[in-house]
Amino acid sequence: MNDDYTSTGIAGADKILGEKGIPRGHSILVAGGPGSGKTTFAIQFLYRGAAEYNEPGIYISLDEDPEDVKKNMSKFGWDLSKLEQEKKLAFINVSPVRVTSSEKAGLIQLGMKEFKLIKLLEAIREGIEEVRARRVVIDPITIFTLQYPDEVERIYAMRDLIADFRKTGCTNLLISELRGTGLDREHQFEEYLAQGVILLRTVVKDDRLTRIFQVEKMRGLEVDNQPRPYNITSNGIEVYPTLTVFK
Amino acid sequence: MNDDYTSTGIAGADKILGEKGIPRGHSILVAGGPGSGKTTFAIQFLYRGAAEYNEPGIYISLDEDPEDVKKNMSKFGWDLSKLEQEKKLAFINVSPVRVTSSEKAGLIQLGMKEFKLIKLLEAIREGIEEVRARRVVIDPITIFTLQYPDEVERIYAMRDLIADFRKTGCTNLLISELRGTGLDREHQFEEYLAQGVILLRTVVKDDRLTRIFQVEKMRGLEVDNQPRPYNITSNGIEVYPTLTVFK
Amino acid sequence: MNDDYTSTGIAGADKILGEKGIPRGHSILVAGGPGSGKTTFAIQFLYRGAAEYNEPGIYISLDEDPEDVKKNMSKFGWDLSKLEQEKKLAFINVSPVRVTSSEKAGLIQLGMKEFKLIKLLEAIREGIEEVRARRVVIDPITIFTLQYPDEVERIYAMRDLIADFRKTGCTNLLISELRGTGLDREHQFEEYLAQGVILLRTVVKDDRLTRIFQVEKMRGLEVDNQPRPYNITSNGIEVYPTLTVFK
Amino acid sequence: MNDDYTSTGIAGADKILGEKGIPRGHSILVAGGPGSGKTTFAIQFLYRGAAEYNEPGIYISLDEDPEDVKKNMSKFGWDLSKLEQEKKLAFINVSPVRVTSSEKAGLIQLGMKEFKLIKLLEAIREGIEEVRARRVVIDPITIFTLQYPDEVERIYAMRDLIADFRKTGCTNLLISELRGTGLDREHQFEEYLAQGVILLRTVVKDDRLTRIFQVEKMRGLEVDNQPRPYNITSNGIEVYPTLTVFK
Amino acid sequence: MNDDYTSTGIAGADKILGEKGIPRGHSILVAGGPGSGKTTFAIQFLYRGAAEYNEPGIYISLDEDPEDVKKNMSKFGWDLSKLEQEKKLAFINVSPVRVTSSEKAGLIQLGMKEFKLIKLLEAIREGIEEVRARRVVIDPITIFTLQYPDEVERIYAMRDLIADFRKTGCTNLLISELRGTGLDREHQFEEYLAQGVILLRTVVKDDRLTRIFQVEKMRGLEVDNQPRPYNITSNGIEVYPTLTVFK
Amino acid sequence: MNDDYTSTGIAGADKILGEKGIPRGHSILVAGGPGSGKTTFAIQFLYRGAAEYNEPGIYISLDEDPEDVKKNMSKFGWDLSKLEQEKKLAFINVSPVRVTSSEKAGLIQLGMKEFKLIKLLEAIREGIEEVRARRVVIDPITIFTLQYPDEVERIYAMRDLIADFRKTGCTNLLISELRGTGLDREHQFEEYLAQGVILLRTVVKDDRLTRIFQVEKMRGLEVDNQPRPYNITSNGIEVYPTLTVFK
Repeated sequence: MNDDYTSTGIAGADKILGEKGIPRGHSILVAGGPGSGKTTFAIQFLYRGAAEYNEPGIYISLDEDPEDVKKNMSKFGWDLSKLEQEKKLAFINVSPVRVTSSEKAGLIQLGMKEFKLIKLLEAIREGIEEVRARRVVIDPITIFTLQYPDEVERIYAMRDLIADFRKTGCTNLLISELRGTGLDREHQFEEYLAQGVILLRTVVKDDRLTRIFQVEKMRGLEVDNQPRPYNITSNGIEVYPTLTVFK
Repeated sequence: MNDDYTSTGIAGADKILGEKGIPRGHSILVAGGPGSGKTTFAIQFLYRGAAEYNEPGIYISLDEDPEDVKKNMSKFGWDLSKLEQEKKLAFINVSPVRVTSSEKAGLIQLGMKEFKLIKLLEAIREGIEEVRARRVVIDPITIFTLQYPDEVERIYAMRDLIADFRKTGCTNLLISELRGTGLDREHQFEEYLAQGVILLRTVVKDDRLTRIFQVEKMRGLEVDNQPRPYNITSNGIEVYPTLTVFK
Repeated sequence: MNDDYTSTGIAGADKILGEKGIPRGHSILVAGGPGSGKTTFAIQFLYRGAAEYNEPGIYISLDEDPEDVKKNMSKFGWDLSKLEQEKKLAFINVSPVRVTSSEKAGLIQLGMKEFKLIKLLEAIREGIEEVRARRVVIDPITIFTLQYPDEVERIYAMRDLIADFRKTGCTNLLISELRGTGLDREHQFEEYLAQGVILLRTVVKDDRLTRIFQVEKMRGLEVDNQPRPYNITSNGIEVYPTLTVFK
Repeated sequence: MNDDYTSTGIAGADKILGEKGIPRGHSILVAGGPGSGKTTFAIQFLYRGAAEYNEPGIYISLDEDPEDVKKNMSKFGWDLSKLEQEKKLAFINVSPVRVTSSEKAGLIQLGMKEFKLIKLLEAIREGIEEVRARRVVIDPITIFTLQYPDEVERIYAMRDLIADFRKTGCTNLLISELRGTGLDREHQFEEYLAQGVILLRTVVKDDRLTRIFQVEKMRGLEVDNQPRPYNITSNGIEVYPTLTVFK
Repeated sequence: MNDDYTSTGIAGADKILGEKGIPRGHSILVAGGPGSGKTTFAIQFLYRGAAEYNEPGIYISLDEDPEDVKKNMSKFGWDLSKLEQEKKLAFINVSPVRVTSSEKAGLIQLGMKEFKLIKLLEAIREGIEEVRARRVVIDPITIFTLQYPDEVERIYAMRDLIADFRKTGCTNLLISELRGTGLDREHQFEEYLAQGVILLRTVVKDDRLTRIFQVEKMRGLEVDNQPRPYNITSNGIEVYPTLTVFK
Repeated sequence: MNDDYTSTGIAGADKILGEKGIPRGHSILVAGGPGSGKTTFAIQFLYRGAAEYNEPGIYISLDEDPEDVKKNMSKFGWDLSKLEQEKKLAFINVSPVRVTSSEKAGLIQLGMKEFKLIKLLEAIREGIEEVRARRVVIDPITIFTLQYPDEVERIYAMRDLIADFRKTGCTNLLISELRGTGLDREHQFEEYLAQGVILLRTVVKDDRLTRIFQVEKMRGLEVDNQPRPYNITSNGIEVYPTLTVFK
């Protein structure tokens, strides 16, 4: 594993990535359906980075309360709080402003208009400084892109975000929600902008639903683009790079 | 069954949920088509909670008159009125304002504009206080979300609702109507926001329609995500966690 | 057949409805494609109700002229006029205002804006008083719902209509036009609001088109939800509750 | 063939229509794709009516120049001009106003706004008086309905048109263009409004395209609703009511 | 080949057209996907007309520069320039106004608003006079129809264009771009307006892509409507009227 | 390889292009999904042109930073920097204006409105002069076309761009992002405007994903339009022109 690449921390995934991992500083789109383990993938990437590769990281939540995320991840036996105290991990909540319930209805719209690229960029910058981060996760990016109704604006906002990450040098995962399913789904524009795309999907095989991991794209790297089975085990996500799987 | 989880009260379902049940305080989306037994599932969850686990509950109706719901459920031999008198169950109707027929046409629009998040939140708060609820059901959530034509607003409203439930500590079911059918349907945004997603669907198997129960997602829990057959019996919904089923 | 239920009057259908029939006072959506026999089903329900179960009924037409409906039904040998004279049946035309052709073009729009829930509700009330109706049919409900372009308004109008029927205690059929075909069609919102849903469809089986009758939903009742073949015979609609049928 | 019905004039079609033909005064939608023989079907219906059943008819064109229609039909050896001179047939062109090319661009929009229900109704009335018509064809109805962008307006205009035809007592064919193909196409609203629906489609059978004729609907009549093969021969359209055909 | 018809000039195609060819003066829609040989078909039709049947023709380009078209066609060994000098062929460019690049951005919109039916009609008229044309090709018609956003306007513009061609007596091909693919594509409105429709498509047969030629429609003519294989050879397009082909 | 054509530089591709390559001066659309190797194809075309055929080229980036592109391509052992210094290659970034993050949010919209055809045309002209380019690549063209919301404007802008390239005499590749997948996808309008179309797709064959290269269209050239397998090897893209492949 030379210096231009960094391990995913996902068992079996690096093997699929040409034994190398992810090119440092790249923005990788991790897209999957509900329950596909997107957040588990993200936290595992940050945890192993901080615990094993001395790469501090930040988790930027646009949806769930980071405290809940940590609680949900406790079952994997990753001591996230310890790493947080050691300033090797930071959990940042940039989801829209919270207000007391009674005022909510009115403020929802306001909160929406306020939250834009700049707020996210500041959170990223502060987070990176705080722990000298080498890894960043935004979970999910979907809520961010949805705020640009015009497709071109959306593409530009996404491009600028990725360009900024490039400057920071941080390897980052952009967690994305798949709407369409099946192999004939339409491609989403983010798949073209990100430097790498990893898909977490489910197919029917031998009368069972099987989870498949696929590296659809990884710029600057020769990868195995065949879908491979994966599971969510008590140790986190495990990919089986030598097994074949197809509906 | 430790203290972090609570039983669904659905025969066979807890086994699929890692023998544990639903994480306390989580918002679970229960999505199904017409006649799939969504309301039966919801009432069974509340009834068993109140009758067997000493967890009072409230049923918040956004559509059907609670009196009708109780009548329809009578066939299962659940004594809901008794539990209601014992203040272990409450049935709350927050469906849009009713007026005398002759005035309706005009007021429909008004009723619509009026009904928003805040009204629902107050109903929930009062209901929880009234019976010291540990369980809440909103049936169906669809009518609530439909009122936000803008997708981002809709997502925010749903997120705020779920965040509020989190604060109450009540385990809650959000009953949702599936529009698309088949395994290749598009995912609905609620599936990403809820902490758990249970699907009640119908597939063709061996020349018959078969009902399938599937835990698509359950944060913080290792679950069996394979679809399993279920039936609506004289005792309510019964899931068969060891049988396999596929079209 | 106890007092809480009433016979459909359709040969074979009651057997599918748990030997009981339709819960009294419920609104049942009868949805089918062109030529599926929706109106035959509706008139047969009213005729048998009036002739055999002493349950007077009213047929509310939103499209075809009731005189034509009666003429088309004559082939089944049901003496509708006699029951009409005996005040056991009433045929009411609430289709939009008619004007002389020469003025039409202009008035179409006006007619549209005029016709709303209230007019329909008054027609129902008068009709019920006139024959002391226990059964009501609206054929088709589609033209009514189409008039609410906003989906939420449409849902509310439908809910109010069903709530009003509930008060009258009349068992009623809402005849609905299926747009999509095939088993993977999208569900229509009416299917969620109605207390029961009966589908009349056509599938290809053994190189022939076969008509299938399916009770998709029936609140408060245990039913056979398998599709069953049916025919339009010289005696009206006949369902074969013991035969299986699938494409 | 009793007096309530009239022959289609299409070889084999009456057999499918319960040996009876079309109920007099009904509006029949004849829907097919390009090249399916819709216009041939329409002219054959009018020609045989005038030549063999002493039922004069009028052909109302909303698209092609009637002179061209007559020319195209000449290959079938039907002497349309003779019947025209005998006042047993009339060909009426109600397509939008023609102007000299140089002015066209500007007038297209105007022509569009002008042409509405009333103009069509007057043309029908005059045509009926001119030849004492018992049969009417509108070819195609599509251009008429397209002019009502609002779906409800469109439905009302179509309903009024059919109601007017009812008053004239003329049996009439409304020629309609199928957009979708395949057996799973969406139903078009006209299929619900017309009293009868005949489909002219094409399916793949035994590695060939085969033309299929299907009576989807015929109010007041027991019909064979199975699809049957048909051809366009030198004598016009021929349906084979005893052959089965399916993809 | 009698005087009412004219040869397509495409080897094998006339045989499919009842040994007759295309009815003189008709507008034929030639629709195909990218690379299907639409333009080759059009030029071959004009070339053979001018060279073998003494029918001068004009090629009206709405997209590609006629010079490029001629260059691309040179591989077929058709001496188009010679026929051009002999005033037997004319190549007319009516694509939107060209301006120097630096001004383009601004003028694009303007060019669009300017270009309408009338301009096309004048080009046709002048072209016809110039070479006493008997044949006309518009390639592609798509760019023309796209300019009418309203569907009814689009239909009227197309009808007027076809009506004008009718007056000129010129047999003409309207080259159209197929968007949808497969046998279940939606029909395009032009297919109903044109007097003939020829489809150039591609299907998978025996693990290869095969080009298929199909006469979907040809008014006034009995044709073979089965799809037949075709190739683009060094002599132009060749259709094989006796071979069958199907996926 | 005569003077009217130029090699693609892609092993095996010229053989599919009639042993000739691409007609000089043509605009070729290269369309593929994420990770299909579109950019590799583009750079390989430029590299071989400059290194082996003495045809300098320019790479115009509308998305990724050219420095990143060069870095990603380094794995193929193409010495791009050397050619750059020798003025045989130029890498130009015309992606929307960059500004400091803090100002971004506001400027995105502005940047969008600014960037239009003219800016792209100037970049092309300067680039061509700088290296006396014979080859040009725009990667991706998608971002350019997306900026014209009106379909007709989009078509015109694309036509003008291609017409300008024609004048420069430069052979050029327009890299395009495929949204739809599968063989039944809708055709994109660019496929009709470009003089050649090459598709890079993925199909399932023998339980594996297989990459397929297909020349859908190449004006003025007889090509093999069958899909052929290709791989991304350590030498770049390799096409296997004699192997067949199909799902």
